[in-house]
Amino acid sequence: MSQILHSSPVKKLITKSLKTDCKELKEKGITPYLKVILVGTDPASLIYTANKKKYCEKVGALCDIVSLSENILESEFLNIINDINNDQQVDACIIQLPLPRQLNHLDYGRLINKEKDVDGFHPENVFALISNNLKSHNFVSCTPKGILTLMQENQIQIAGKKIVIIGRSMIVGKPLAMLLINHNATVTVCHSHTKNLKEITKNCDIIVSAIGKAKFINESYLSPKNDQIIIDVGMNTDTLGQLCGDVDYDNVFNKVAAITPVPGGVGPMTIVSLVQNLLQASKNRLSL
Amino acid sequence: MSQILHSSPVKKLITKSLKTDCKELKEKGITPYLKVILVGTDPASLIYTANKKKYCEKVGALCDIVSLSENILESEFLNIINDINNDQQVDACIIQLPLPRQLNHLDYGRLINKEKDVDGFHPENVFALISNNLKSHNFVSCTPKGILTLMQENQIQIAGKKIVIIGRSMIVGKPLAMLLINHNATVTVCHSHTKNLKEITKNCDIIVSAIGKAKFINESYLSPKNDQIIIDVGMNTDTLGQLCGDVDYDNVFNKVAAITPVPGGVGPMTIVSLVQNLLQASKNRLSL
Repeated sequence: MSQILHSSPVKKLITKSLKTDCKELKEKGITPYLKVILVGTDPASLIYTANKKKYCEKVGALCDIVSLSENILESEFLNIINDINNDQQVDACIIQLPLPRQLNHLDYGRLINKEKDVDGFHPENVFALISNNLKSHNFVSCTPKGILTLMQENQIQIAGKKIVIIGRSMIVGKPLAMLLINHNATVTVCHSHTKNLKEITKNCDIIVSAIGKAKFINESYLSPKNDQIIIDVGMNTDTLGQLCGDVDYDNVFNKVAAITPVPGGVGPMTIVSLVQNLLQASKNRLSL
Repeated sequence: MSQILHSSPVKKLITKSLKTDCKELKEKGITPYLKVILVGTDPASLIYTANKKKYCEKVGALCDIVSLSENILESEFLNIINDINNDQQVDACIIQLPLPRQLNHLDYGRLINKEKDVDGFHPENVFALISNNLKSHNFVSCTPKGILTLMQENQIQIAGKKIVIIGRSMIVGKPLAMLLINHNATVTVCHSHTKNLKEITKNCDIIVSAIGKAKFINESYLSPKNDQIIIDVGMNTDTLGQLCGDVDYDNVFNKVAAITPVPGGVGPMTIVSLVQNLLQASKNRLSL
């Protein structure tokens, strides 16, 4: 019987502790406060940002969605971010990606001050991760952090395990590789140039797919031993317009030891990580 | 017949172009100038720093070895580095590792200004590497860069190849993994917690060993097809006191397609990379 790695029980547990932490911070005069910058009206971005706000408010934190015009000038955009960076009441800020064309050249990892960079994209935060030297003022990128939490809370052993990550983005693949190497996994990073991908995915303990191709991974990618764990980071739309992951869930379900569903797997963990980072930023403000 | 990947022909070729570049810089009024900070009298460090100075001078660049007492106070050490960072005649500076105990807690990657950090250890340089966004003002860590150059100059294909890196240090393993992923290799990072290492090394195209264990890799780690390429980053001493790599060279020589010797393989390439970086720093000074 395959195990479904639902985020809900883990989320419930963490939400409880985040509520407690948030209450304690408020008693000390600090209300955790996140600004989410949303440029334009991309439907997926609207949903993502609304979910982030909703979860912030659920644990007792403040969240403003700063909605900006698709056509905003670069100078105006940078002024708004500068104000947020300087606002001492704001603990944290994230920029919802993607950005429109006129802002696309910006080095978004540096726009937010590192102390407020709860997305963990700032060079200082990435460096702390790669050098395995994370301090309380550093933030780990939310999706990798959420995947780690989901695995740890489900008692999935990481040390010594062979983990194949498909995808090498700066948002998932690369930081996740560093995080899992630091947790003593043997990590292989695959991508569009990888040859014989199936041979590689068949010979590992855990597969993490972050490629953005609907139902790409099916049983032909899996070990015949039915003992692998699948972490599906994909958020795609299938031919029927339904949300689905990178993994053909129904096809592989009986061929794996455990699998994250889409929706209800990695996605909600990303938001949980974001709010964990937000509360960490608030605690840092308190200790200043 | 196995190919020996000697550094000498590659080094000869690059030295020629470095000499030309150096001459051109001097004609424009700039003499490339490296400071090497050496604390104490560790015998290996004495040899390494002397070799670096010798090669700088060979191509026409200046190199000072700043020899400091093993017992230097932290404040004094930091003052010296500060002076070098501010010295507009000095293009580049490296700190020879290891540092003595009283300096060991220092975050050595941040001590040298990023513009002079030709070792590529500064967070900004590491970030540029991991995000595959290297600009002319960024420097790639010397050993990874030297390995890449040695492979490229020997027409070893990297894209699509399965490369296993043994070792996860910030000096070799991790930056090399990023560099090779960016060059479209499928990279696996192994380390002391890896299980069934032999099974992993047998199933790849290229093995890079950076673990510091004399003659650790023997034919039992290799594919029976005798078609693998071995890059040996180790600089160890064998039971007879002879310099040797991580790989038992005599044992594997007839079982591989190509292998780097120790000495004469990766080691000299590291120095070549350092001086390439130095000249790049000088060119950056010129363009200011």
